[in-house]
Amino acid sequence: MATATGHTAAIQASRVIGTEVYNTEGKNIGRIEDVMLDKTSNNIMFAVIGFGGFLGIGEKYHAIPWASLDYEEHRGGYVVPFSKDQLQAAPVHEINELTGGDGYKARDASYDYYKVPPYWI
Amino acid sequence: MATATGHTAAIQASRVIGTEVYNTEGKNIGRIEDVMLDKTSNNIMFAVIGFGGFLGIGEKYHAIPWASLDYEEHRGGYVVPFSKDQLQAAPVHEINELTGGDGYKARDASYDYYKVPPYWI
Repeated sequence: MATATGHTAAIQASRVIGTEVYNTEGKNIGRIEDVMLDKTSNNIMFAVIGFGGFLGIGEKYHAIPWASLDYEEHRGGYVVPFSKDQLQAAPVHEINELTGGDGYKARDASYDYYKVPPYWI
Repeated sequence: MATATGHTAAIQASRVIGTEVYNTEGKNIGRIEDVMLDKTSNNIMFAVIGFGGFLGIGEKYHAIPWASLDYEEHRGGYVVPFSKDQLQAAPVHEINELTGGDGYKARDASYDYYKVPPYWI
């Protein structure tokens, strides 16, 4: 579960966006590009992590379950409990696949791949 | 409940931020300054609506339950089912009251005031 920073439970979406993300091996795997929200429920669908590409060109995106993000103060970024190999084999998306359609396909693929218990069941 | 735009359930937090908000009488009551996320669960705590002030000086903030926001395509903004009187008497906060502490006090006051069923019970 995303841990509290400075003993607060609340975090502004605008502060999450742009935060660096590291894997368990300490490797920077990208940064949070956005947070996908569900308009039909009260839920955060997933965080969108961008990696690769240059100035947004050729960039690919992972959908990562919100619950997998742990903020590490000393690192100034989130750590996800996934190895480099796991991340490299993870579903990647173009940004329009995440925002177009209903978003559920990318969400379901992400929770399935990372074996994170779905919040919607 | 926040309704779907273009038949999608997913909406990027970065697109929500900056969207204008209207009340049931069609009056513009402010704009969405941010979306507060709960780090300890999978939930959206509330939307932060800014109103009054000038260039951010003297601005006050409402915490509005996510479920109260309905996107109206023709208006290009969200409509909340609250009257002008209701909104004028609603709890207002300084931005640091929303982000500091644990965020639950502002959240609870908001859901209580607007009589929106709490998502956390």
